[in-house]
Amino acid sequence: MTKPGTPQGMRDFDAATVLKRQFILDTIKTEFKIYGFEPLETPAMENLDILIGKYGDEGDKLIFKVLNNGLDNEKNRDKLEKGVEEIAAGKASKFLTERALKYDLTIPFARYVAQNYNILTMPYRRYQVQPVWRADRPQKGRYREFTQCDADIVGSDSLYNEVELALLYDSVFTKLGLSGYSLAINNRKILAALAADCGGAEKMTAITVAIDKLDKIGIDKVKEELTANNISNESVEKIVSYLQIEGSNKEKLKQIKVVLSPSDLLAHGIEELEFITDKCEKLTIDFTLARGLNYYTGTILEAKAPSGVQIGSIGGGGRYDDLTGMFGVKGVPGVGISFGVDRIYDVMEALDIFPQSIAKGTSVLFMNMGEQEVDIAFTLMQKLRGAGISCELFPKAGKLDKQIKYADKKNIQFAIVLGSKEIEKDIALVKTLATGHQESVPLSDLEVYLIQNMA
Amino acid sequence: MTKPGTPQGMRDFDAATVLKRQFILDTIKTEFKIYGFEPLETPAMENLDILIGKYGDEGDKLIFKVLNNGLDNEKNRDKLEKGVEEIAAGKASKFLTERALKYDLTIPFARYVAQNYNILTMPYRRYQVQPVWRADRPQKGRYREFTQCDADIVGSDSLYNEVELALLYDSVFTKLGLSGYSLAINNRKILAALAADCGGAEKMTAITVAIDKLDKIGIDKVKEELTANNISNESVEKIVSYLQIEGSNKEKLKQIKVVLSPSDLLAHGIEELEFITDKCEKLTIDFTLARGLNYYTGTILEAKAPSGVQIGSIGGGGRYDDLTGMFGVKGVPGVGISFGVDRIYDVMEALDIFPQSIAKGTSVLFMNMGEQEVDIAFTLMQKLRGAGISCELFPKAGKLDKQIKYADKKNIQFAIVLGSKEIEKDIALVKTLATGHQESVPLSDLEVYLIQNMA
Repeated sequence: MTKPGTPQGMRDFDAATVLKRQFILDTIKTEFKIYGFEPLETPAMENLDILIGKYGDEGDKLIFKVLNNGLDNEKNRDKLEKGVEEIAAGKASKFLTERALKYDLTIPFARYVAQNYNILTMPYRRYQVQPVWRADRPQKGRYREFTQCDADIVGSDSLYNEVELALLYDSVFTKLGLSGYSLAINNRKILAALAADCGGAEKMTAITVAIDKLDKIGIDKVKEELTANNISNESVEKIVSYLQIEGSNKEKLKQIKVVLSPSDLLAHGIEELEFITDKCEKLTIDFTLARGLNYYTGTILEAKAPSGVQIGSIGGGGRYDDLTGMFGVKGVPGVGISFGVDRIYDVMEALDIFPQSIAKGTSVLFMNMGEQEVDIAFTLMQKLRGAGISCELFPKAGKLDKQIKYADKKNIQFAIVLGSKEIEKDIALVKTLATGHQESVPLSDLEVYLIQNMA
Repeated sequence: MTKPGTPQGMRDFDAATVLKRQFILDTIKTEFKIYGFEPLETPAMENLDILIGKYGDEGDKLIFKVLNNGLDNEKNRDKLEKGVEEIAAGKASKFLTERALKYDLTIPFARYVAQNYNILTMPYRRYQVQPVWRADRPQKGRYREFTQCDADIVGSDSLYNEVELALLYDSVFTKLGLSGYSLAINNRKILAALAADCGGAEKMTAITVAIDKLDKIGIDKVKEELTANNISNESVEKIVSYLQIEGSNKEKLKQIKVVLSPSDLLAHGIEELEFITDKCEKLTIDFTLARGLNYYTGTILEAKAPSGVQIGSIGGGGRYDDLTGMFGVKGVPGVGISFGVDRIYDVMEALDIFPQSIAKGTSVLFMNMGEQEVDIAFTLMQKLRGAGISCELFPKAGKLDKQIKYADKKNIQFAIVLGSKEIEKDIALVKTLATGHQESVPLSDLEVYLIQNMA
């Protein structure tokens, strides 16, 4: 016999959790639509060669690969052996695995855009809310199956798209009751200008990777890491001055011109930041924001949880120059954002701001008073259900306190007794479980009574 | 470079398809809740030993297995080799694969119930709407990734649960506009009584498998198949008489007593059918309904598409005695139904009954008339979005006919021109794209105008 359990790092979601997650996802999807985005869904699996090589060596290892079917067939013995040789040599072997589970939504999206480029209307505004899988070591807040929630605008390099996405963040977080969140912006062109000043473009990755860790490891460790990457003391001091720029958005944009040497790159970065922050008040320029992905080429965005909650990033995104080049379609720039659904869930739990109405169980339990009585209850119940009131019938006649206990445990709001006495008088006995209040209600008034007294 | 495409038997869903599927799923989920069911979600993957052996040998082969990670590591060389030996010997090897993708929702549900039996309130009414994966040979209407949509009531043997599920089918199909559907019921106890009359219990599977094919292969082939399974001519004739029972539900229940020999089994089957069909008018007794799964022990149900559409079953279910015994928890009976979402989609397309409103694109496109004008448009757009009206801004200033073409292609309803002339006069020029009608609307009236004229 098998001991029942879920695979490591993967979760069952019970009713309360599903309903809360659904509240978050529905709120986000509604805003996506209001902002003119349309949905896309791609399969859980992609052909392996679509995914391999897109996430770096570390990423490749964390992709869940699906074993080819039919390998236990005698005919496929040589495939099996060749596959093993290839895997032992550190390669992803087509003989053993040709498909893999989505690792993020971006590469499947790029694949879709490349595949359908001729029929898509550009700019294409799509949203996508689907699970992805990563064979990461599970830890608190990190799962092997989690939901990603992305919106992208591709086929346009207009900075209005950045403004749209920043405003979209603001609408969603406000609707979720997270108005204390903050929204940081920076631009990879400014980071590139910084790198140009501090050893050249080839230091860009080392510098952004180190800056990215500032929040976690502090300025001294960042300096150590930069030095360890052969960045001169002078450059390290310049990076420190860069990271210490403070003040209002306008002041920061003034200071950056003092700290960094003039260049076209810097001028473009500043111009873009100015344009976007002018049009969205919520944005705060944060030069310490780097976002590790080399993928980004312009604006980068990060949404952070309200400062009372130690959770950090609840969303991020940025602009990229070339979405689909890897699939043979050149010249498709875009900008996208992502919502960290699991993190948002944790923040909302920590702040206790999920609407109470989410936790409501079924509205009405019809007590089972015996077959003849139930026949009448059923007609009534179907009428209430037709009016959108959620109802259950206790499936077996028996002790009423057992039935009430069931209603209590399930957070049901009203219990209705429709026994022979009540039927004779054309009434129902309605008990409000939270208060214990009990009332005889004429059957003809029942629907109105329930709607008026519903929590 | 990789040619972009989806894995065989798996599909991308574009916006129009997602929205139609969502309409079906939302309708079903709303009724699930009105009938007092609560949601459950389980991971895409299960530990392999949870799934293996539950679907027969054929099923085992069709389970998508996930390759263990880290096999390319030198340290794991011996695991790799042992794994290959086991697979070559036709076994599912833990060395290569410990996890697999869900094959249906029933086994993960059983695993969940067994795992959480002590904290669940019984009877437990759960619904679950999630994708499952099968390595079947893809063909028209059969995919390797598809959505299952199940509702079950477990921990209760009351026949009211069957009534509830039959009524639930009726509510959902009526809401979807499929009132021409039909709902057939039979009982495995009656099929067992038939088998007892025709060679004994050991013939039950052969008889039900043959009967199951009646629709597809016709009565003559069914007779051939029965004979091939060593069922006597006399028994074959009895089975034919059984399959030819006709008339109203009451007439059928009378006739069955003539065709089959009296037994407790038969009496119970008849009693159950009588109880349930009495309480749900939509149900038609259909003795030719068998439903292959040995799993079922009492009621079996099948919903069929309206007769004008050659699609057949759009849902099915039944009662089982023992959900969780395989996971060590005895005595949990239940009854469940399933909606065939892909089939329902095809039927609704064939009948062309998706509500037109589903296909609506964004409501409003703000034309891009240049930066200063856009600053004002943006404020207005955010106000409209705040009122729930979906809006887009064309991201680049430029030729108006190009912008209008974009709106046309995307099925956008209104295009709004807010140029310097309009801004001076505090008006907007609103063009209704379907009719070409154009009207100047004072900015203060814009929201009301749009809401009143929206399709």
